[in-house]
Amino acid sequence: MIEPRTLKGFRDHLPAQALAREGILDVARRVYRSYGFVPIDTPALEYLEILTGKGSEETDKQLYRFKDHGGRDVGMRFDLTVPFARFCAQHIGQLGVPFKRYHMATVWRGENTQRGRYREFMQCDFDTIGTTSALADLETVLVVHDLLSQIGIKSFTIRINDRRVLSGILERLGLVERSSTVLRSLDKLGKTPPAAVAAELESNGIPAAATADLLSLAGLGGEPGGLLAALRGLVGESEGGRAGVAALEGLLAGAEKAGVQAGRIVIDPSIARGLDYYTGLVLESFLDELPTLGSICSGGRYDNLAGLYTKQHLPGVGASLGIDRLLAGLEELGHLQSRETAADVFLVYFDQQHRDDYLRIATALRAGGMAVELASEPKRVGQQLKVAAKKGFPVALVIGSDEFAAGTAQCKHMASQQNVVIDWHGDLRVLVDAVHSQLEAIKAGH
Amino acid sequence: MIEPRTLKGFRDHLPAQALAREGILDVARRVYRSYGFVPIDTPALEYLEILTGKGSEETDKQLYRFKDHGGRDVGMRFDLTVPFARFCAQHIGQLGVPFKRYHMATVWRGENTQRGRYREFMQCDFDTIGTTSALADLETVLVVHDLLSQIGIKSFTIRINDRRVLSGILERLGLVERSSTVLRSLDKLGKTPPAAVAAELESNGIPAAATADLLSLAGLGGEPGGLLAALRGLVGESEGGRAGVAALEGLLAGAEKAGVQAGRIVIDPSIARGLDYYTGLVLESFLDELPTLGSICSGGRYDNLAGLYTKQHLPGVGASLGIDRLLAGLEELGHLQSRETAADVFLVYFDQQHRDDYLRIATALRAGGMAVELASEPKRVGQQLKVAAKKGFPVALVIGSDEFAAGTAQCKHMASQQNVVIDWHGDLRVLVDAVHSQLEAIKAGH
Repeated sequence: MIEPRTLKGFRDHLPAQALAREGILDVARRVYRSYGFVPIDTPALEYLEILTGKGSEETDKQLYRFKDHGGRDVGMRFDLTVPFARFCAQHIGQLGVPFKRYHMATVWRGENTQRGRYREFMQCDFDTIGTTSALADLETVLVVHDLLSQIGIKSFTIRINDRRVLSGILERLGLVERSSTVLRSLDKLGKTPPAAVAAELESNGIPAAATADLLSLAGLGGEPGGLLAALRGLVGESEGGRAGVAALEGLLAGAEKAGVQAGRIVIDPSIARGLDYYTGLVLESFLDELPTLGSICSGGRYDNLAGLYTKQHLPGVGASLGIDRLLAGLEELGHLQSRETAADVFLVYFDQQHRDDYLRIATALRAGGMAVELASEPKRVGQQLKVAAKKGFPVALVIGSDEFAAGTAQCKHMASQQNVVIDWHGDLRVLVDAVHSQLEAIKAGH
Repeated sequence: MIEPRTLKGFRDHLPAQALAREGILDVARRVYRSYGFVPIDTPALEYLEILTGKGSEETDKQLYRFKDHGGRDVGMRFDLTVPFARFCAQHIGQLGVPFKRYHMATVWRGENTQRGRYREFMQCDFDTIGTTSALADLETVLVVHDLLSQIGIKSFTIRINDRRVLSGILERLGLVERSSTVLRSLDKLGKTPPAAVAAELESNGIPAAATADLLSLAGLGGEPGGLLAALRGLVGESEGGRAGVAALEGLLAGAEKAGVQAGRIVIDPSIARGLDYYTGLVLESFLDELPTLGSICSGGRYDNLAGLYTKQHLPGVGASLGIDRLLAGLEELGHLQSRETAADVFLVYFDQQHRDDYLRIATALRAGGMAVELASEPKRVGQQLKVAAKKGFPVALVIGSDEFAAGTAQCKHMASQQNVVIDWHGDLRVLVDAVHSQLEAIKAGH
C-alpha cells in the first residue's frame, strides 16, 4: 500500500478553506470586471529562458525546472508578471492598448518552508498596460479599495507613495547613484526600528544629514495638506520629485471624487517596495486590526513591462492580491466563515417511500434559485441534522409521512435551533416561497 | 532579446477564450453547489509514486516528472481522480461520508499534440463518495443534465448504461473471462462500423452467435419499455444483469420525477467506456448538432476509489466535464459569444475638464451593479466607439460638454447602432436607472 501524503511545502485545500478561497476569488473577479479588466491565462510551464533572470537570484534558485519529453528546458511559473510580459510581447498587437487584464492562477517557488510559507500559492493580479494616464493609476487604487471593501474587510488602509518623490529627495541630496542601497534600507522601515535603519544607511556611507532627511519620511503624517507641503520641501527643485508630489495630490483628490471614505487611502512616504521595478506610484495595503501581517495587496507603476521580449514600449500600472496571506489574516482575526457547504438547504431523507417527493421538492427549490443537498441515504433524522449543523447549512427541511399527510414541513434554523412550521398544502410553489423567505430572514439577521 | 513563445502543446488564453471558459466554470460551480457538492483543491505536484501505475502505461509515459530541490521524485497531476483518491485516504475520516466534492483544475499530459490536443487542459470533476445509494447515481445524471442545460446547450443527449447489463450478457453467453476483449471492441461502436467490430470480435475468437447478440445491443432503440424488455431477455437469469436493467429503469423514472424532459436521457446499451474502472452506471453526453465531437461529459459508478492508499472501502459515482472539448464544439457550432469584455458599459472619455464627472458617473453605475470601463485617456469619440464595438460592449455612454450643460447623455447600443438620448438633469440616480433599463432591454432582445 502507498502512503497517502502531500509533498513538503504543499497542501490540500479542504472544503472550508476551498470555499473561503472561492469566495474571495469570486469578489476579485467581480471587482476587476466592474472596471473593465478581462481575464487571460498562460501555461504553467514556460521555456526556461523566459523565466530565468527575471526575478532575483533567489527566484532563479527557487524555480522548479526540468527537461520535458522533447528534451526542452522548461520551468514552472514563479509569478504572473513574467508570463504576462511574454504574453504581451506576443499578442499586444492583436489586443491593442490600453489593455486591462486580470490573471488569477497558481505559481510555484521551491522556497524555504519555514514560517507557514508554501511552495504553491495563488496570485490575483490586475494591470493596465500601454498607457501612462494618471487615471489608470487612480483606477488601480480604486480597484484595490473596492476589492478590500467588497471582501468585507471593515477596517483597512491603502498606503500610497510615488517613487519619483524618493528619487527627487535623493537627487536633492546628491545620492542618485546610491538609490538601490538607500531604497533597500528604507524598505525596512515599519519592520525595523528607525535607529537600526539609520545605522545601516550610515554604515553604507550615506552622510548623517542625508540619513536624517530620509528617516524623517517615516515620521511624516497628519493631514494630507501638511504632508504634501513637507514633501515639496524635501524634493526641492527636483522636477521628477515635484511631479511625484503632484501625482499623489491628484490621486487623493480623485479618490475623493470617486466616493472613497477619507482616511482609507493615505500617503506614506516611507513605502519604497525594495528593489522592485516600480517607477511611479507604489502602493501597499494593510488590515488595521493586524498590521504585522504585512501588505495584502501591493503594486505600482512601471516603465516598461516586456523590454526583454519586444521593442514595443509598454508602460503599465497594476497590483496583486496576496490571497493566501489575506486568508491567513482573516482566519487569525476570526473573520472567516468556516462553513463546509455552499448550499442553503439540507433536505432530510428518512422516509424511503417518499423518495420521489423529496426529489420533486429538491428540484423545485433549485428551480427557485436555492442550493439543496438531499441526503443520499435514508438515515435517522437526528443523525442527519447533526451533520447538517456541523457543515453550516442555514436551514434543514424535515418532511415525513405525517408532514406530507398534513401538508406541512418543519424548517429548522440550524444556528438558532428555531423550528418554523410551514403550511404548504402540498403546493410546491408555496413551499419554495416559504423556504426562500426563511433564508432571507436568516441573511437579514432575524 | 528573448523570443516570446509558448511551449509546443501549450497555449495562451486570450480574453475572449478566457471569458468563455470562466462563463462555463461559473455555471459548473453553481450547478455543483446547487446539489450540495463542495470544492476541494490538491497540489499540482505529487510524489511520483502517488501518480505512477494509476492510469495506463500511456499516462505513465506522458507524466511530467522530475526531481525537486530536495531530490524527491515528483510528478505533475495527469487527472483529478488519482489526487482525489490520495486526498480521501488522508482526509475522509475528518470529512465523513457520504462526501460530495467538485474539483476544477488544470492537469498536464505530455501527449502527442496532433489533432488539436493540448498538453495542459482543465478538468471539472464531481463525485459522491462513500455510498452505493441509487439516489447518488440519479443525482449524477441530474447534475450533468442541469449543467448542460444551464450552459445554454439547446439540444443534447445523455446516454446511460449499466456495466452490470453487459456483464450479465457476457455471463449468459459464457464469456465472462473474455470481458476486457469484448468491452474494448464494443467501445468502438458508434465510431467504427458494426461489421468491423464484429470482425474484430470474431478474430479474437468470440463465437459468431455471441457476436450477433452483442452487436444487437447497438441496434436496440425505440421507447424505453421495449428496450428494457429486450435487455431483460439478453441478460437472461444473470442476477447482476437483472439488477443493472432494474437500475436503468429506476434512473429513467427518477429523472422524470425530477422534471427532466423526455428523450434527454436515453439508455444506450452499447456504451462500455472501454477499460475504465466503472462497475455500475456509465454515462456519456453528446451535442446533438455535433455528435462526432465525442462525449463532452462522462462518468459512472466505481467500486473502490482509494484501495491503493487505504483499507477503507470507498465506493462512489461521478462524472467529468470536458470543458476544452465543449468549448471547441460550441465554437465550431458558432454558439460561442466571442465578447472581449465582461463589462456592460463603455464610458467614453473625451472631455478632459470633465474627468471628475466621468469618475463620479462610473462610480455611480458600479454602485448600481453595472460593470463600467472608463477610457484611460481622452481620445476621439469615433475611435473609442470603434474599440467598444469590437470588444462587444452592449452600450457606450457619450457625455460631452454639451450633454453635461443640457443634463443629457447619449446611450449608444453597440449592436444595433441605435442611439437613445437620456435626460438625467444632472441627477446620477436617474442616469443609473436609465442605463440599467437600456441594458435590460438589450438582454431581453428589444
